[in-house]
Amino acid sequence: MARKNRPQRPKARRPRGFDDMSGQVLRAERQLIDAAFSVYEAHGFEPLRTPAFEYADALGKFLPDEDRPNTGVFALRDDDEQWLSLRYDLTAPLARFVAENFNDLVIPYRRYQVGSVYRNEKPGPGRFRQFMQCDADSVGVPGAVADAEMIMMAAEIMEAAGLETGQYAVRVNNRKLLDGILERSEIPLTDDGLEQRLRVLRAIDKLDRLGPNGVEALLGSGRKDESGDYTEGAGLAPDAIQAVLEFTALPDRDRTTTLSTLDRLIGQTYRGREGCDELNEIDRLLTATGFGPTQVSFDTSVVRGLGYYTGPVFEAELRTDICDKKGNPVRVGSIGGGGRYDDLVSRFRGQTVPATGFSFGVSRFLSALERLHALKTKVLPPVLICTFDRGLMPEYFQLADRLRESGIRAEVYVGSGNVTRQMKYADRRNMQFVVLMGSDEHKVGTVTIKDLYCGAEMARVIQSNEEWKSTRPAQETIPQARLVNYIRDRLL
Amino acid sequence: MARKNRPQRPKARRPRGFDDMSGQVLRAERQLIDAAFSVYEAHGFEPLRTPAFEYADALGKFLPDEDRPNTGVFALRDDDEQWLSLRYDLTAPLARFVAENFNDLVIPYRRYQVGSVYRNEKPGPGRFRQFMQCDADSVGVPGAVADAEMIMMAAEIMEAAGLETGQYAVRVNNRKLLDGILERSEIPLTDDGLEQRLRVLRAIDKLDRLGPNGVEALLGSGRKDESGDYTEGAGLAPDAIQAVLEFTALPDRDRTTTLSTLDRLIGQTYRGREGCDELNEIDRLLTATGFGPTQVSFDTSVVRGLGYYTGPVFEAELRTDICDKKGNPVRVGSIGGGGRYDDLVSRFRGQTVPATGFSFGVSRFLSALERLHALKTKVLPPVLICTFDRGLMPEYFQLADRLRESGIRAEVYVGSGNVTRQMKYADRRNMQFVVLMGSDEHKVGTVTIKDLYCGAEMARVIQSNEEWKSTRPAQETIPQARLVNYIRDRLL
Repeated sequence: MARKNRPQRPKARRPRGFDDMSGQVLRAERQLIDAAFSVYEAHGFEPLRTPAFEYADALGKFLPDEDRPNTGVFALRDDDEQWLSLRYDLTAPLARFVAENFNDLVIPYRRYQVGSVYRNEKPGPGRFRQFMQCDADSVGVPGAVADAEMIMMAAEIMEAAGLETGQYAVRVNNRKLLDGILERSEIPLTDDGLEQRLRVLRAIDKLDRLGPNGVEALLGSGRKDESGDYTEGAGLAPDAIQAVLEFTALPDRDRTTTLSTLDRLIGQTYRGREGCDELNEIDRLLTATGFGPTQVSFDTSVVRGLGYYTGPVFEAELRTDICDKKGNPVRVGSIGGGGRYDDLVSRFRGQTVPATGFSFGVSRFLSALERLHALKTKVLPPVLICTFDRGLMPEYFQLADRLRESGIRAEVYVGSGNVTRQMKYADRRNMQFVVLMGSDEHKVGTVTIKDLYCGAEMARVIQSNEEWKSTRPAQETIPQARLVNYIRDRLL
Repeated sequence: MARKNRPQRPKARRPRGFDDMSGQVLRAERQLIDAAFSVYEAHGFEPLRTPAFEYADALGKFLPDEDRPNTGVFALRDDDEQWLSLRYDLTAPLARFVAENFNDLVIPYRRYQVGSVYRNEKPGPGRFRQFMQCDADSVGVPGAVADAEMIMMAAEIMEAAGLETGQYAVRVNNRKLLDGILERSEIPLTDDGLEQRLRVLRAIDKLDRLGPNGVEALLGSGRKDESGDYTEGAGLAPDAIQAVLEFTALPDRDRTTTLSTLDRLIGQTYRGREGCDELNEIDRLLTATGFGPTQVSFDTSVVRGLGYYTGPVFEAELRTDICDKKGNPVRVGSIGGGGRYDDLVSRFRGQTVPATGFSFGVSRFLSALERLHALKTKVLPPVLICTFDRGLMPEYFQLADRLRESGIRAEVYVGSGNVTRQMKYADRRNMQFVVLMGSDEHKVGTVTIKDLYCGAEMARVIQSNEEWKSTRPAQETIPQARLVNYIRDRLL
């Protein structure tokens, strides 16, 4: 039969910035999420799942200001002409959820959530347009106690993920401290000064990259970089610049020392006083629950990008035991953070709903664990039951069943290959054991077991090719009844 | 300061057909997915996660045939003008993944996956535009052995979810059987007969709803329903119609009886023979692994909607112990199913890649479990540590810590309410225990524990309002050191 207008075959490919994940890394991810969930559950938080789509105006921040609002978010028009956006984080949908259900919710509302978020941005190495975040938030909680709990949970999650003291750190700051510095320097704290304050934050955020001189320029009149690009400065007076630099250069000492320095710097300003008091309360609670300066430090250089934070902010990071020239442990990378945001729900309701939260990037956390060689999963490759006599298929499945019932992964080969291909399959899947049973063995109730790791081990040890050829991978014929115990005793 | 052009407040609302989920149902979902994953892992399957977006042409089926291809799928145009679609199932992306990585994959490729899928369809009660599927597939497996394994796993998952024999069933059919019937009736099995064969399938699928007479009309010249709408028929000859009706009316007996009836009906046709042989092999394997007719039956009325199935198909369903008039157990509902699809990867590669899979709807499974009162989770509400003396906050956190370390959920009240509001909070969150410690109690090392369940229980028992007022909820003051054991002994 002639086929007309047969469509061209589509090419099997992924859109840019979207990744496939498989195997052990997904198992490690599941373990990490389980660990985080256990911590959240232990603290009394409840699970929530909001959908991937929200109305564009409910998400905020990226409000549609043109016909197709696709800057930063994935958006499409629904049948009823309203714009839908895929969520870019889990916090904006939480604000929508709380505002929508405010009268039915039990306040404080404490929830945790994991889910994919979407950013319609230029992808790059390690930068994806879909990635997973894992959050916990307390809503309706005005004091620093709830912030302290977030910080504790961040530290507890890192321990639950298997990290030891010294391998992680939470660095805590408070937006109000900088407000205090600026207050001392007579920068207005009203909305009029908002853009200037954000410029100051962005300048501080570049301390690591540009050093104090670069930041000084950005706090003052501005800075031209090597490429000739000019960044406008925050326009602070020289006094104020010095105050900010002194503030951000506080050494990473124990929390009590940092607090007394801060007290001296800004204790007399209204906002600075508030900020110090909150850090004091956080310090008391952390100390009482056993989180010392190695786990949680106060660090005035922590900025956190988002404009919506209003109080304590913190960043969680993984570290190596290796120290840099200054004697500080080398940072493997920030895996997330959080802080207080008192105004997010008020977008919908007009009234302020104080809230605080913690969010970590699941993949970032996993790759940091990988760099620390701390990525562990407990799942071993399955045992392969070879199938070279199709007539014995029911018996092969029974062998596999017995292994599974004892908690050992087992797989009957269901492909079409001969024994050689089946052995190759086992090898490529990194399987340790292959079970062989022909009709002769079946008649006398035995099975033959090959240990491929043993064979591979011997191949590494035996240098001579001749010698190798004369050596067969370790194998043994045993009674079927011994199958489970034999394998269990030898599983690596 | 006057605010100009203040934007109107957005309304907190969800797009139609997108749902928020919270609390115990999410925990039950996680348990169900864990159970399914354990079964897949035990059989040697590996996890995979593909992204939410695929190129529209790679997804297939819903190929863009107009400027904006939004029938059934959510689609949007990427920066480079290519159409992206949100996946509508997990099978089409698997086909893309296998085709893209064919040369690197170990074949058979066996993977499992859970994830949200998206349908841009009219939402309704219980019908959402985003929902979760959980799949396993074997790719590169030509024989019925792999199909039998899918059926076993479906049954094992239902047992792992806590269902007992009789509460679930897998009903198995084979597309080739109907082909055999049609072959006997001289309906062409080439592409020319495809539309006619699909009409036959759709007619059979309406057996439950329309009964044999309605189906007879649809198999023949067509049928006008009560509203006057006319559905064109498959145009079979009277003989063929009788053969199809006889075929679909096979009683739901033990598998051996069904097989011998099928043998008589279509054993002489080429495709029918193939179909019978495959079911025979499936029967042998299921019998060997202990799956009798109560768990897995052969049922020729099973259709499965999708056009791409090419061999064995099956449906998994939950049942009650209650029987209908015919003595069959009442069906609670189909939770998923699967079957063989040998042509899906060939869309990309030209060459046939035989495959088989199983997919269940996570929410459908959960609501079926709920209707059977089989939805269980083990997570209890947390213990609440009341905070009426802010100066004792560190001590409150220490109490909570001790409970958590013993595996008991515990939450320090971090809201702003007084004790009355805190008790109300505990009550609304259905908490059993509230721990109170004032400065007097702290000094002498005691805590007071209220058992709210006990109080509520008494409120139910005590009819008289007077009597109730004079009774206080059960409470006791104990040494702090006894806190953990006291609560552990009394947790309900």
